[in-house]
Amino acid sequence: MQPFAQVAILGLGLIGSSLARAVRHNMPGVALAGFDQDPEVRATGNRLGLVDRMAETAAEAAHGADLVVLAVPLGAMRALGASIRPALAKGATLSDVGSSKQAVIDQLSDLVPAGVHFVPAHPVAGTEKSGPEAGFASLFVGRWCILTPPDGCDPEAVAKVAAFWTRIGSKVETMDARHHDLVLAVTSHLPHLIAYSIVGTASDLEDVTQSEVIKYSAGGFRDFTRIAASDPVMWRDVFLMNRDAVLEMLARFSEDLAALQRAIRWGDGETLYRRFEASRAIRRAIIDAGQDTDAPDFGRPHGEPARHP
Amino acid sequence: MQPFAQVAILGLGLIGSSLARAVRHNMPGVALAGFDQDPEVRATGNRLGLVDRMAETAAEAAHGADLVVLAVPLGAMRALGASIRPALAKGATLSDVGSSKQAVIDQLSDLVPAGVHFVPAHPVAGTEKSGPEAGFASLFVGRWCILTPPDGCDPEAVAKVAAFWTRIGSKVETMDARHHDLVLAVTSHLPHLIAYSIVGTASDLEDVTQSEVIKYSAGGFRDFTRIAASDPVMWRDVFLMNRDAVLEMLARFSEDLAALQRAIRWGDGETLYRRFEASRAIRRAIIDAGQDTDAPDFGRPHGEPARHP
Repeated sequence: MQPFAQVAILGLGLIGSSLARAVRHNMPGVALAGFDQDPEVRATGNRLGLVDRMAETAAEAAHGADLVVLAVPLGAMRALGASIRPALAKGATLSDVGSSKQAVIDQLSDLVPAGVHFVPAHPVAGTEKSGPEAGFASLFVGRWCILTPPDGCDPEAVAKVAAFWTRIGSKVETMDARHHDLVLAVTSHLPHLIAYSIVGTASDLEDVTQSEVIKYSAGGFRDFTRIAASDPVMWRDVFLMNRDAVLEMLARFSEDLAALQRAIRWGDGETLYRRFEASRAIRRAIIDAGQDTDAPDFGRPHGEPARHP
Repeated sequence: MQPFAQVAILGLGLIGSSLARAVRHNMPGVALAGFDQDPEVRATGNRLGLVDRMAETAAEAAHGADLVVLAVPLGAMRALGASIRPALAKGATLSDVGSSKQAVIDQLSDLVPAGVHFVPAHPVAGTEKSGPEAGFASLFVGRWCILTPPDGCDPEAVAKVAAFWTRIGSKVETMDARHHDLVLAVTSHLPHLIAYSIVGTASDLEDVTQSEVIKYSAGGFRDFTRIAASDPVMWRDVFLMNRDAVLEMLARFSEDLAALQRAIRWGDGETLYRRFEASRAIRRAIIDAGQDTDAPDFGRPHGEPARHP
């Protein structure tokens, strides 16, 4: 028994297309409809066979679905929600994959027709790639999906959405939307902002050329460039939509960085050592929790050393 | 013909032990001597067969070597240099693997006996792991090794050290020590400082628990924890020894971050988008230069999705 029989995925980028593949792979009986506002993405989706039925409009895709998932940047949620409103059947469930949850609730709540369940969700998974060809079925395996049902949400609908994500391989957690936004501000939004920022800093130097930055990036910089290669529209919207939590975390980060700066300026090796030493425990815990690989250097290939006897 | 016949590696952590393995693998005829001030590391090195001769003192290891490589944290270089001084034979070459080059030159120059060549080097390679068991022979393959010979350095000695690193699989570049320090401040030291700092910020929140930070780290945070798991002594010394360049880069980074902060506060999506968009080009260039893998999400395993038909 599948939690949903007809699923519509609106937006077929990295996340939407991965979700389509994951549904296909794990819930073969489910009828899958899809839509993307970009005709090229729809054509690619058809070529890849992502869905059973590629619709020409969002409403057409949503029509008849018992689960409709919005997988578009946060800034596009409200317009999309409005466009599918007439197509949502009584008893259907509306969900999404947005990275900031209070914003999604604020944008969509008044659009949800009576009798339709609204269960916002955020799968904490992704890569630095974008688009329908970048998706893959196992993207969500072992990763957390956070549900943030608004007050008064039907518990049965929440349970069905939880079962849906579990079926795909995710672990599911439920929390308040505002708390979600604070947690993600520190675990995801702040790291992305910092990564984007340092990549900008490194590109704009007078004394160090860009080619030097690239050549010697293996010293640490390249790790930041990975997440700074993520979709710029999606991330612009995240920062605009989760503004308060991001600014709060940024202020704390800036304070902590200033303390390290001061320690460097005054040659306070003890403070530096104490702070650095503490970081190892968190890394260990992330690996133990299965949220990262323990392979040195992310298991990056170093090539096979040539032998010259 | 090997560039050196007898090599001594002093310090057998990640870098020193990798270098020993690389020499063994690529220059089988070379006689390898080793030393580490930690008796446990020496015992491990013996068990792993890292070197032909494990010495009980640094001077004993250096004795008779035509290349002596110091592979210890920057803060330990001068004492080590002083201790091996009497053992350095005329015509021998002294080198190192320190991450900050002017500091190494400042600490060692007056200790180098007449007739001994001093060729500082920095292989821009490493992982977040430490110790002799973390090393591997291919660590330096395809990575850059930067030589920073001081004024008046014998070009033939420089060429031999370059040949040595080339033999190991590295690409070799020569530059001025101060320029090296500026380049590495941005490509390596600043990223590490920021990573250490954000890991600290995330550990110290009241509203978000550490277990939440760990659970949801796949949203970006975990990438920062990798480099923040690096050796704390080594990094303390880097920041103390490359202070001016690090503070300079940090000031620039803080300015750039403040500009993004302002854009978020004022809802300036255009500025955010423009900055984020620019980052992708640098990522692409790093991958094209062979300095990182193009595998999505660093090729991290996502597990195989379980099928429940």
